[in-house]
Amino acid sequence: MPKVSESDLSERRADILGAARLCFIAYGYDGATVSRLEKATGKSRGAIFHHFRNKETLFRAVAHRDMLRMTELASSRGMIGLIRYILEEPDLADWWSLRVEITRRIRSDALLRTSWEADQKALRQAVTARLTEQRESGRLRQDIDLETTIQLLELTLEGVMSHLDSDRVSDHLPAALDLVEQSLRSPDAVGDFDDTVTVTDTALVDADRQ
Amino acid sequence: MPKVSESDLSERRADILGAARLCFIAYGYDGATVSRLEKATGKSRGAIFHHFRNKETLFRAVAHRDMLRMTELASSRGMIGLIRYILEEPDLADWWSLRVEITRRIRSDALLRTSWEADQKALRQAVTARLTEQRESGRLRQDIDLETTIQLLELTLEGVMSHLDSDRVSDHLPAALDLVEQSLRSPDAVGDFDDTVTVTDTALVDADRQ
Repeated sequence: MPKVSESDLSERRADILGAARLCFIAYGYDGATVSRLEKATGKSRGAIFHHFRNKETLFRAVAHRDMLRMTELASSRGMIGLIRYILEEPDLADWWSLRVEITRRIRSDALLRTSWEADQKALRQAVTARLTEQRESGRLRQDIDLETTIQLLELTLEGVMSHLDSDRVSDHLPAALDLVEQSLRSPDAVGDFDDTVTVTDTALVDADRQ
Repeated sequence: MPKVSESDLSERRADILGAARLCFIAYGYDGATVSRLEKATGKSRGAIFHHFRNKETLFRAVAHRDMLRMTELASSRGMIGLIRYILEEPDLADWWSLRVEITRRIRSDALLRTSWEADQKALRQAVTARLTEQRESGRLRQDIDLETTIQLLELTLEGVMSHLDSDRVSDHLPAALDLVEQSLRSPDAVGDFDDTVTVTDTALVDADRQ
């Protein structure tokens, strides 16, 4: 057999992760049997478990990858920016199905719980860094505890994801997000309520700065 | 066999529903096998399916009962009042596990989808009636679309339930709820931010009025 380069290996790993992810979303952890994983990835069980020790390890890797992606987005766009992005990209709505599966699994998989909590911490750090910067620059209210600000943003993220998951996308979601944003903005930074450009261009949404 | 009175029947039905609910929460719909349902309810399959045609019917009845309870609470306490109540009663945190199961099941059970959508509509009507009253009495901002107000409250409810489900109860949740409440209150009704009594006594939380 020819030698396999590092980048080929990493690509195969990523292919397996992507296909296995859809399989876990479609069937749940228990329902994603090895045969279904083989079918979804187009690889034999031998090939799959060459890259990932077992199904538990594979699931943990899938969960970790989703959290990394979410943290990258929160870091570059801010939390409200991340939420608006999820609204605009319906493909991302299935994050929630995976999330529900993770929440179920952390009750019985201690390693998953540990890695998920570490990932949550990283997401929180990314969000904290961004919010701190925006408080210092006067765009966000400083009379609200930073932790409370983060808590409100996390509630909103999870509420939106859960809505998308049950197909309840409403025309009023963006306006509800505006309200959350306005409640966190410094009064000096508050523009006309009708001026949606102001709302999306300032405060938490700031994708261009990255 | 002695005759069974109507109220006995209704009580037995309620007992089965309560026990089956915990079984669905613990094992998920698929994992709640007939043997597990027998064990959970302490009744034979014959007795269970005397009251409910089959497992699907039983699950729909369990889902409907939870939504009725939620609508009653939203009607008497308002949506923020309902959310605070859920925070104070950790027993209710398992609502979310059932909700996740419902969301999964409505994809394959059309009757469940129909009844769940009707229940959601009833909840929304209860919330709308209360909010309309509070807008008219000047306690809530009228410059926000009513639908947007409801959307924000629904997002918040689902975010909180999802947080509780993954054991992430934080000390900052009540303060985050205050922020949501403040963002909806009429400026005339806004008190001192440090005055938490003002925050919980006015606006949406109004349990005493029922």
